[in-house]
Amino acid sequence: MNLTTRFQAVQEASRALAGIPDAVIAELLRHIADELEEKLDYVLGENQKDLARMDPANPKYDRLKLTPERLKGIAADMRQVASLPTPVGEVLSETVRPNGMKIRKVRVPFGVIGIIYEARPNVTLDVASLCLKAGNACILKGGSDAHDSNVATVGIIHHQMERLGINPDTVMLMPDDHAATQELLEAVDYVDLIIPRGSKSLIDFVRSHARVPVIETGAGICHTYFDEDGDLAKGAAIVNNAKTRRVSVCNALDCLIVHASRLADLPALCARLADSKVTIYADEPAFRAMQGHYPDALLCPARPEHFGTEFLDYKMAVKTVNSLEEALAHIQRYSSKHSEAIVSENPEHIRAFEQRVDAACVYANVSTAFTDGGQFGFGAEIGISTQKMHARGPMALPEITTYKYIVEGDGQTRRC
Amino acid sequence: MNLTTRFQAVQEASRALAGIPDAVIAELLRHIADELEEKLDYVLGENQKDLARMDPANPKYDRLKLTPERLKGIAADMRQVASLPTPVGEVLSETVRPNGMKIRKVRVPFGVIGIIYEARPNVTLDVASLCLKAGNACILKGGSDAHDSNVATVGIIHHQMERLGINPDTVMLMPDDHAATQELLEAVDYVDLIIPRGSKSLIDFVRSHARVPVIETGAGICHTYFDEDGDLAKGAAIVNNAKTRRVSVCNALDCLIVHASRLADLPALCARLADSKVTIYADEPAFRAMQGHYPDALLCPARPEHFGTEFLDYKMAVKTVNSLEEALAHIQRYSSKHSEAIVSENPEHIRAFEQRVDAACVYANVSTAFTDGGQFGFGAEIGISTQKMHARGPMALPEITTYKYIVEGDGQTRRC
Repeated sequence: MNLTTRFQAVQEASRALAGIPDAVIAELLRHIADELEEKLDYVLGENQKDLARMDPANPKYDRLKLTPERLKGIAADMRQVASLPTPVGEVLSETVRPNGMKIRKVRVPFGVIGIIYEARPNVTLDVASLCLKAGNACILKGGSDAHDSNVATVGIIHHQMERLGINPDTVMLMPDDHAATQELLEAVDYVDLIIPRGSKSLIDFVRSHARVPVIETGAGICHTYFDEDGDLAKGAAIVNNAKTRRVSVCNALDCLIVHASRLADLPALCARLADSKVTIYADEPAFRAMQGHYPDALLCPARPEHFGTEFLDYKMAVKTVNSLEEALAHIQRYSSKHSEAIVSENPEHIRAFEQRVDAACVYANVSTAFTDGGQFGFGAEIGISTQKMHARGPMALPEITTYKYIVEGDGQTRRC
Repeated sequence: MNLTTRFQAVQEASRALAGIPDAVIAELLRHIADELEEKLDYVLGENQKDLARMDPANPKYDRLKLTPERLKGIAADMRQVASLPTPVGEVLSETVRPNGMKIRKVRVPFGVIGIIYEARPNVTLDVASLCLKAGNACILKGGSDAHDSNVATVGIIHHQMERLGINPDTVMLMPDDHAATQELLEAVDYVDLIIPRGSKSLIDFVRSHARVPVIETGAGICHTYFDEDGDLAKGAAIVNNAKTRRVSVCNALDCLIVHASRLADLPALCARLADSKVTIYADEPAFRAMQGHYPDALLCPARPEHFGTEFLDYKMAVKTVNSLEEALAHIQRYSSKHSEAIVSENPEHIRAFEQRVDAACVYANVSTAFTDGGQFGFGAEIGISTQKMHARGPMALPEITTYKYIVEGDGQTRRC
């Protein structure tokens, strides 16, 4: 399949976007939200076609499924994005040089952003609204399993674009075809940035096949260190929340690190996990401390592979350390640099942890469950970056822009 | 060759850097500058060994050559970098969320930065000082031709590090071995970022072989558009400066775009270029306008390949357009998104050009020769990014840092 002509059309459309006022984009998003709610039955019907092709026992089934409530939530999110200030045009700095030339650093859209994701129809609407609000055209490659749902919702987006005189090529849904993905990954002349959202295997595939610049999102191997000076009540609440709030998300706790001097408190620290039937893989000292205080069926000796694993399940490793230094070394070795936490009442330990842990989000006495654009107050989220270049942690509108320098003068030339 | 152990040592050293106060780094840089000047004869002698292996007719010879003046200039630049404020620790934003948790976005070093460059011994000292000042360890892969010079200068860096008790592994010079480069490009577990500096072929090689994230620098296919409302005196000065100040640099002018209504002014616009023996490849209307007004030997009809070419030489293409729209289309097609200029007295044309040209630096009535960290007032430059991710245009200290979010609270957990 040759998609070049279509990619070119998206690029053309992205350039025209610069001339469309933010108020019109906001109106567009509100109209799309309205039409989504008006056509609830139609969208649910198309979603039903996707669902009919999937075994309800498949763990993806729930993510694929749209309900009236979920669609209303998506519409509400679109209205929320509509109301956010656009980052485009923001003057990031402004200087006048000794020769009189004025340099402004101005935020501008990337141009065309490609998003590759799995069978989550909500992502289609979320990322389209974020891309549009930040002045970007977008190319959406959703999972095959959700293709009917995506065709339906992108149809609504296009319908409203046409009503407002906006080129529908601004939001392109890719054909349901694996070869098409490879073409997208290689489209360096037409696509400015690709963001993969989904499983580790999807992200690994994108990383190893993309020629277009990629922002990696996703994998979170998250630790919480319960320090010798940790408060037990805070620790128990944080461990339980970070592990059990939602186990399938990247900010969920994978490994509790406990200071050896607090092993006696370990059963209390983990007590509530038994309610959620969390299996604990404990190293030897932790195993001894837990034995008899945690359901036998849920307590296992840790094997090496339990450390550095993103469980995405009701499972957690426990590592015992003799010092903060040892905890830092364990995190350094196994962390995916996503979210790491310390529970401690010792300001020096907290400061050392905050300074020395190399991760997008470093928490002191707070659950790692907060790594999320909405929770950070960004109003929206397009993903959580696990790389250091460009953007780190939760990404919202400013993170899907770049900048340019605009230099104005009256004939300045350079002498040396 | 297996360099993993050495890369690990650099990574270890990068972590220790966080504990070294900025004042000590500044002192280190000043001491290195002092020793460079004290050991002028030694460094020049080592450089002489490199020079002895190269044909003086080779265009690289001049770049390879160190002189007392050049070394003093390098030392002065190091002292300048020493005096710049460190970007590390800067709080980029700070918020308190409704649940009381405090989120700070703090600038932190990347960790380990690899620089791959050619036979320019000054780059060794420039990038080492910038990396150190921004809290990064660095791995330097210089060109083979400059290896003796690099060994000498890195020796001085290590000597001063040892005197101040800083781990010399913080600055690693790679072996003079091509296979080593490939190992560096693949060292994802140890290297956070690679910046290639040099020719297009070097950058292409790095881009296609790197697994470590790369910031591309370099290629500049730069246009200057002389608008129907352009001022002739400003235009002539800007064209001459952008083309002839230094032809071997990325911000040099490659293609003059002239509005058809100003063809009568084209000879005056280009008159001074003849003094520098600039060969002009003119499209048909421009050729007719120039004929008889520019030395015949330096005036050639343009062929298609002259557009979109980075000449790096006393050569320039001229393209005639009938509108600003057509000029924008030409730039869109051939620009490398580095530096683009308009010469015009028409504020609407200037605004449209600034808004619509997709380049790191967009100039109005200013020579593109200013695309440079020093000229922008950044105090230093590690390269000029031609990509949109992370950093665009001249890069200095902030651009070789990343950030992390530090979240502090008193036991906050997430409810939904």
